[in-house]
Amino acid sequence: MHERVLRHIAHIHTDFPTKFGVPRQSGLVDSLKAVVQFLPEFRSADAVRGLEEFSHIWLIWEFSQAVREKWSPTVRPPRLGGNARVGVFASRSPFRPNPIGLSSVRLEGVELHPSLGPLLHIAGADLMDGTPIYDIKPYLPYGDCHPDAAGGFTDVHRRRVLDVDFPPDLLGRIPPDLRAGLLGVLGQDPRPAYHHDPARQYVLPFARWEICFTVAGDRLTVRDVRTAPSAGENP
Amino acid sequence: MHERVLRHIAHIHTDFPTKFGVPRQSGLVDSLKAVVQFLPEFRSADAVRGLEEFSHIWLIWEFSQAVREKWSPTVRPPRLGGNARVGVFASRSPFRPNPIGLSSVRLEGVELHPSLGPLLHIAGADLMDGTPIYDIKPYLPYGDCHPDAAGGFTDVHRRRVLDVDFPPDLLGRIPPDLRAGLLGVLGQDPRPAYHHDPARQYVLPFARWEICFTVAGDRLTVRDVRTAPSAGENP
Repeated sequence: MHERVLRHIAHIHTDFPTKFGVPRQSGLVDSLKAVVQFLPEFRSADAVRGLEEFSHIWLIWEFSQAVREKWSPTVRPPRLGGNARVGVFASRSPFRPNPIGLSSVRLEGVELHPSLGPLLHIAGADLMDGTPIYDIKPYLPYGDCHPDAAGGFTDVHRRRVLDVDFPPDLLGRIPPDLRAGLLGVLGQDPRPAYHHDPARQYVLPFARWEICFTVAGDRLTVRDVRTAPSAGENP
Repeated sequence: MHERVLRHIAHIHTDFPTKFGVPRQSGLVDSLKAVVQFLPEFRSADAVRGLEEFSHIWLIWEFSQAVREKWSPTVRPPRLGGNARVGVFASRSPFRPNPIGLSSVRLEGVELHPSLGPLLHIAGADLMDGTPIYDIKPYLPYGDCHPDAAGGFTDVHRRRVLDVDFPPDLLGRIPPDLRAGLLGVLGQDPRPAYHHDPARQYVLPFARWEICFTVAGDRLTVRDVRTAPSAGENP
């Protein structure tokens, strides 16, 4: 038997209702907060006992928006401009034989909620809101950290960070605790890799808002902040 | 639907026919060699294109010897002496709601074999021979490496390394290219955590041999090396 049925044990709640703007790797926007909530069957304070002693944890999760019947041996990573192809196993692309994602995130705290069970407050996640999770593991520096590792094509194609011009009256519409995360997301340049049209206006859905912006050269300018049409439907 | 069917894409070939002696984490015995071989459906040179530029890769695999119907919220990690309990999500124990293992290993080379397809030559793996693999990803230092991460209970309970006394005439029975790995495995103290009987003789199955040894204090002494009864049945 060459397969296995895995269960979802939890979901993550993030400020990304769509994939647009999700950081391309975990840790790139450390100010971005999220919460992991277990499914009822897995709500156990015992199961997370001792987890709070770790500063970082692994999430092993499902690329639930990227499940395909077929897989392609090669992919075009955004880091290479969206044109060059590399092998799917030499990439972190979501379009893989098994739709498994892997992210290390900072653990800010474990809350024992009276009705929802343990909630993991995390930072730096690169997951869409509602993404199902298969497993949570502690990050072990002695086994997981390789400071001298060679990062292949990712070493030479580091993505630029943009200057972000966010007019104060617009930024004021966002709650203070979400601002640093949003600024980090914008600075990472959420546009598709091959877009370079300074006149084009983009709309980033973020939490209950839509952030409208343009990009000219290295500068991103926020043009409007409006309430999303579906706001209030917090899952 | 709260589950997903995942396929095995590859198997690993290591020198551990049983779980006895398998390092407790990846990277602990860097001299230990292994080979990843893809299942026929996934044998594609394109799928590993560019992987050789990375020095380390992730294996996401199945704890195939630890699949259980039920899961327990707490486990007793060997690093804590096998007595203290921690939450399963605060451990890397194989006995988890989903039997998923996560290991970073050093990639020594990618061989394009004419009939077996791409073979990944790796070092430092902590997997039993024949373990099925779900996914292979490049290790990205900028996202995966957190040198300052706090490692919880693993920080204070580093396992001692033993002095290994391996008589030269016995070591001579092991092929030269396997010796460093075997010495590393023995130095990590493969005994169960709660064993402290200097008279007890242990038998480590390693590749086609059985390594018989005793441990007194901080010293492990190899007593015999014999050919395993099942030797020759290389899967």
